[in-house]
Amino acid sequence: MKLKTIEDFFLHGHQFNLPGVSVDNVIFGFHENQLKVLLLQSLDKNIWMLPGGFVGKKEHIDEAASRILKDRTGLDIIFLKQFYTFGSPLRSNNKILVKALESLNQKYDKDHWIMQRFITVGYYSLVEYANVNPQPDEFSSVCEWYDLDPLPELLLDHKEIIYKALDEMRLNLNYQPIGYNLLPKEFTMKNLQSIYETILGRKLDRGNFNRKILSYDILDKKEKHYSGGAHKAPYLYSFNKKKYFKALENGLGRDF
Amino acid sequence: MKLKTIEDFFLHGHQFNLPGVSVDNVIFGFHENQLKVLLLQSLDKNIWMLPGGFVGKKEHIDEAASRILKDRTGLDIIFLKQFYTFGSPLRSNNKILVKALESLNQKYDKDHWIMQRFITVGYYSLVEYANVNPQPDEFSSVCEWYDLDPLPELLLDHKEIIYKALDEMRLNLNYQPIGYNLLPKEFTMKNLQSIYETILGRKLDRGNFNRKILSYDILDKKEKHYSGGAHKAPYLYSFNKKKYFKALENGLGRDF
Repeated sequence: MKLKTIEDFFLHGHQFNLPGVSVDNVIFGFHENQLKVLLLQSLDKNIWMLPGGFVGKKEHIDEAASRILKDRTGLDIIFLKQFYTFGSPLRSNNKILVKALESLNQKYDKDHWIMQRFITVGYYSLVEYANVNPQPDEFSSVCEWYDLDPLPELLLDHKEIIYKALDEMRLNLNYQPIGYNLLPKEFTMKNLQSIYETILGRKLDRGNFNRKILSYDILDKKEKHYSGGAHKAPYLYSFNKKKYFKALENGLGRDF
Repeated sequence: MKLKTIEDFFLHGHQFNLPGVSVDNVIFGFHENQLKVLLLQSLDKNIWMLPGGFVGKKEHIDEAASRILKDRTGLDIIFLKQFYTFGSPLRSNNKILVKALESLNQKYDKDHWIMQRFITVGYYSLVEYANVNPQPDEFSSVCEWYDLDPLPELLLDHKEIIYKALDEMRLNLNYQPIGYNLLPKEFTMKNLQSIYETILGRKLDRGNFNRKILSYDILDKKEKHYSGGAHKAPYLYSFNKKKYFKALENGLGRDF
């Protein structure tokens, strides 16, 4: 059951959701050598937060992550990767929810379900943000792509969650291919290198990059069409879909 | 507060623990080219399980994992790595706890805290099992190192949790050094290779292995002492402690 209003949510949320467990989604957006993160702004415009929420009593946490993302932003992302669970006892005092309770003149005390300690399971994804048009839901005023540096003031430990997701995504560059959903069908090696550089936040040596990527054997090299000046144009590549998804499954670049 | 008896636990556990959240530890043991996992056997000797338990209301989940491991097995392992959170709605019906409730003639219904759905946060570690002497606690009859293949019948989704931890440990071989707590101070390259082969469950090419490990620059080569036949003896190595722990922190073998 989807609770339709904030009042519904505060009064009945505990009947439908697992106690003490939430889910938070870190959606990174890549576009023209920029990396951003999708944030929601609270209704009173005082603070930003990740698109997160609670887990239904009979819902898988993975499904909760997808549903919450879709409900809160309109985004329908199939691939969300669980990366870490945040379980400090200090991550409570959810200012947004407390303020919302107060603004609704809802009576509550320390036993109210929303005042309890929650652990949160973090998921991340990386999308081309020109392809998506996120929308805020009734719990937030704005939903938009935000620069990673500097981040605005964020709810709870959401800044820590974003940095941990970024670390994890950087690590994943070493054993999973990336770029399929971020590049046009044909692209230059430089386009692909830009994605890696943007995620890593640093420049890479062109020769080393080319050598490593080619060693993964996931690209098809396109024929050059020679015309005026074209001999200076860079080679175009496309992902070999079969090899790319095989590498996505089996991993690449592993020593062992 | 530590609950002293099983009765205490069933009657008062919900007052001290987070609802709906548990922790499970996958402790891998390495010894003479064998890889085992630490399991507890239920009091009625019907089923095996991972050393797991619940999270105190004001306790960090990481601390809960260490405390539970120590309480249930006597092991005091500092490095437990969180690797995944298991959140299927199907992971309930904890046979052990239900049986224990019944055997104690405890009254319970579907609202009893122990009958609720739990998500569990998985942690793993790898130790030299000759160095440790695990002990069962009052909730289990036996605590021992068990072969990974075949595993016995296990509680809930504990088999899935073990396999996922093994996958994660294998992946970690590619970006973290391993062996410091598993080998004597001086060892041969073959000794180190055996650890990798045991974890991976497959043989590695000796030349490639040597080349990769040496490229990590974490070993000191020892002087050979030439004596009768010693020219045939393999080189001995030791970990360069400073470089090893630096690599543990910064990662190794990364393409990016």
